[in-house]
Amino acid sequence: MTPVTVLGLGPMGRALATALAAAGHPTTVWNRTPGKGNDLDATVAGTAAEAIEASPVVFVCVLNYEAVHAVLDPAALKGRTLVNLTGGSPAQAREMAAWADERGIAYLDGVILNGIVGGPDAALLYSGPRSLYEAHRDTLAALGENGVYLGEDPGRAAGFNVSLLDLFWTSMFGVVHAFRLGAAEGIGPAEFAGYAKEMAGLVPGLIDVVAAHLAEGRFPGDASTLDSAAAILDDVLGTVRANGLDDGVLRAGRAAVQDAIDAGHGSAGFSLLAAH
Amino acid sequence: MTPVTVLGLGPMGRALATALAAAGHPTTVWNRTPGKGNDLDATVAGTAAEAIEASPVVFVCVLNYEAVHAVLDPAALKGRTLVNLTGGSPAQAREMAAWADERGIAYLDGVILNGIVGGPDAALLYSGPRSLYEAHRDTLAALGENGVYLGEDPGRAAGFNVSLLDLFWTSMFGVVHAFRLGAAEGIGPAEFAGYAKEMAGLVPGLIDVVAAHLAEGRFPGDASTLDSAAAILDDVLGTVRANGLDDGVLRAGRAAVQDAIDAGHGSAGFSLLAAH
Repeated sequence: MTPVTVLGLGPMGRALATALAAAGHPTTVWNRTPGKGNDLDATVAGTAAEAIEASPVVFVCVLNYEAVHAVLDPAALKGRTLVNLTGGSPAQAREMAAWADERGIAYLDGVILNGIVGGPDAALLYSGPRSLYEAHRDTLAALGENGVYLGEDPGRAAGFNVSLLDLFWTSMFGVVHAFRLGAAEGIGPAEFAGYAKEMAGLVPGLIDVVAAHLAEGRFPGDASTLDSAAAILDDVLGTVRANGLDDGVLRAGRAAVQDAIDAGHGSAGFSLLAAH
Repeated sequence: MTPVTVLGLGPMGRALATALAAAGHPTTVWNRTPGKGNDLDATVAGTAAEAIEASPVVFVCVLNYEAVHAVLDPAALKGRTLVNLTGGSPAQAREMAAWADERGIAYLDGVILNGIVGGPDAALLYSGPRSLYEAHRDTLAALGENGVYLGEDPGRAAGFNVSLLDLFWTSMFGVVHAFRLGAAEGIGPAEFAGYAKEMAGLVPGLIDVVAAHLAEGRFPGDASTLDSAAAILDDVLGTVRANGLDDGVLRAGRAAVQDAIDAGHGSAGFSLLAAH
């Protein structure tokens, strides 16, 4: 079993070290704030350089790319493989790959989509050199059996991640705002939740509809037009404003609908906004 | 079987007339633009007043409240029951109830949540006088066996509706924007859709979490803090801006997160935004 090192022992770093050690990899860990990792089935290194020198494969999963640069020791990493599972933008991943390349470090970028490490429910995506992914496939399998390799562009995994986070967090803006609007209309959270879950449960099916429209390059308005979306949104906005609630997110979305209507697309489907 | 009238023969009005006639109600229909309804199992009236006078229970389902007022004949409606299934705001429903009350018209407000009329999948909500709902319960069952009465406040059904539409449309803003961001990062719609559905599939479970936090009045940040949401949103926003895409919805949501952080809630859970 390949010895591995994990830099960073936040919740995700701990999960990585636990999964790798459980799979039988001799595991070394290090955290910038000392005193962490003694409860893990791993060797706690005294310095980042020591931790890196203990293994040919080094995982890093810290708060952000600033923290990545603060913990990495390029001299120690030279000739080793660095797998960066820190969240960030595609541009940051590409810059990191270039940085590693200049320093003789083999670099694979990855994202942990749902916060789960190990087992069948983990969803990890990787991008970077295919040969590197193939060489370490067995080691990566310890982090989740359904890991997916997305291609040579090191920013590709992060590109998927930020796009999915766009969808997720925008939806969550809607969730918290809907509870507030409901409360302003005298609807309690428990009473509202069941209906809200049904409504949110319609979205996955509509994602397929949007994808099909994009694939066809046609955006029929038979189910719902931009004109009708605008009318509904005006009802919602009127109620939000009558209750004195923040209307920022809805106002911005309504403006995007209006732009499409002004461009002559009022009778097209809402899915048109996915294309223009 | 109680004779019924349906005013308005758009897609929803047609579905209402079809379901009522199928349940055995003698059904009269009328549409402002003539020539509609001849294919239905219903009597097509020549005027709105004639249609109204044909039945003790009159359904209206048109584009908006402006259209409701354009089709209703208050003299003909006096002494009858009006069931308004036109979409609008709670304030509009309450105004309509007062308008009907002043004219001796019994008024029930309702919403068709998911566009389905009839059968087990229809989700209709009603509000207004309980006695009126009970008196017409059998007739309303023709529109969907799972109709729910929400209370005496005539705006309550519309309050549920606009709150659910807030959640739905905000989520859909996220869906279309995520496809655009993915495309800008070289990710095709078919490739993206599967992951997007999984991400959207996390939302119903989180609705339960938000409802539980609201019920407890506590917003623990153990799963995700407002500080971490801000960091993630900054990665997403950076990528959106680097690709020259509209950042309005995300920017407005990010501002709401910042307001909560500035008020000292950075280590609280994202669910706090549902309360303040």
